[in-house]
Parts: sequence; C-alpha cells; structure tokens
Amino acid sequence: MERAVELAVKNVQEGGQPYGAVIVKDGKIVAEGVNTLHKTFDVSGHAELLAIRELQQEIKSDDLSAYTMYASGRPCEMCQTAMYFAGLTDIYYCQTLEEAIEAGFPEDSCMTKEDLEHLQQSMKQLPLDNDMTNPLKLWAHLHLE
Amino acid sequence: MERAVELAVKNVQEGGQPYGAVIVKDGKIVAEGVNTLHKTFDVSGHAELLAIRELQQEIKSDDLSAYTMYASGRPCEMCQTAMYFAGLTDIYYCQTLEEAIEAGFPEDSCMTKEDLEHLQQSMKQLPLDNDMTNPLKLWAHLHLE
Repeated sequence: MERAVELAVKNVQEGGQPYGAVIVKDGKIVAEGVNTLHKTFDVSGHAELLAIRELQQEIKSDDLSAYTMYASGRPCEMCQTAMYFAGLTDIYYCQTLEEAIEAGFPEDSCMTKEDLEHLQQSMKQLPLDNDMTNPLKLWAHLHLE
Repeated sequence: MERAVELAVKNVQEGGQPYGAVIVKDGKIVAEGVNTLHKTFDVSGHAELLAIRELQQEIKSDDLSAYTMYASGRPCEMCQTAMYFAGLTDIYYCQTLEEAIEAGFPEDSCMTKEDLEHLQQSMKQLPLDNDMTNPLKLWAHLHLE
C-alpha cells in the first residue's frame, strides 16, 4: 500500500489526480497504475484499471484471481466491476470516498451509491424488433447447442 | 438501436460476444463499439466503453453530456460508471441481464447487483501511515488553497 500511496503523491506532483494502484502476487509488485485523466481524454484512465490492463497484457490472461489489488483510494464502481470480471477479489484501499469529498474533490469526479442508482433508474429499455436477429440467442445457438 | 444490435450480431458471427453499442448526436452515429474480449486480454473491452473512448479521442473532450448511448445489452456497472463520469446520462439498451443469463451466458460473464455488493463488502480499508504524505490533502493544497 505504501507504493500505491507513493504513486498517488507523485501523480499529484505531476499535475494529476491523487490516485495510484499496484497489483501484487507472492509479495511482489507485478503491475502499477496512476490516474491519467490529466493526460488523456479517456474516462477509463483510472489507476486500478490501467494496472489491470497492464497485467493482463503482460500475462496474456483474463484471470487475475491469484492477485491482490492495493489502491490508494477506494476503487470506483467502474474499477470494482473490472476487478469482478477479472476474478480479482482480494482488494485493499486506503483513502475513502468521504475523505475525497471532504478534501474538496469535485463532486462530478466522485460517484456515490445514489448517483449510480439514479443513473440505473434513468436507463431506458427498448424491445428487440421482431424482424431483427437476436444477438444473445445467436450466441447461444453457436456456443451451447 | 438497430445499428447497435446489428453490431452485436456481427460480433457473434466473428467469434465474439453478443454486445454492440453506438453513440448518437443529433440523429447521427458518432461512435461505435463491439465487445472485444475474444480478441484482447483487456477486461475493459466492452462495446460501450470502447465507443466512449473512441468518441473522447475524436472530440478531445471528457464531456459527453450532449450524446446518447444505445447499447444492444444492458450496460454493466463498469460501463455505467464510465458514462456517469463522462456525463453521458441519456442511455438506451435492448437486451437485459436476465435475458443473457436465460440464454445460458456464463455466470462469471454476468454481474448481478448482489455480486457487486458482495465484492464491495469484501474490500478492506487500510489506514494511511502517519509518516506518509496524504495524496488527497496534497491535491487539495495545490488546487484549492
């Protein structure tokens, strides 16, 4: 965790946001990431997600279940979900969302549980037209039958 | 939405997962994406997120609040959160998570609300050591004072 926090501090000194993350296996750091939102127009440039992507490329695998994540700040739901899909469930973090809000971090850079629920409730479902191929059924037909 | 579903069908025909997405402004498609998990070891290769990243690069902006997302399948929480941070709140989807599970889509490729809550509850918070610089406070000192 010391290294994750150190990366976060260094990122702030370089004009970035206060977030760093490292992925560890057998006591060794195998991937690192920092928030890159100050450098690139890419909403997915969070420390945790970049460390995950780096490691996946490195080991050529989608399965990170043997690894541990240390993040300087509480991972957002984007990064949590990425960890879920990668099977990475051993997760430590240091600073909380409340600390970020207290420090004066912009509210639109913080997402609360209520913010996500509000977005989910606003999503609108449209039915599949009868004349269109059903993608899920086509997938099932090709892979399961 | 027709184009998003068409992309999903095409992606299945090419060996991929049944998900496609398009971003629209003023009735015109400005970005497209399909799920690329069959091609790259990158857990963030979801249709919606790739369309968002393509558009952000194109318009050199983090603000997608003027755009509408059409996704062939209900966006996962990773993509929902990315949309939240990008200010993209006008979201339509066609096929539901329940339809994916019913079609026989692998459970570890589907994340329920309970799966996410379980992961969140398992995350462990570690306090900041007293001798370490506080990244959030350093950020606040540099940007807010």
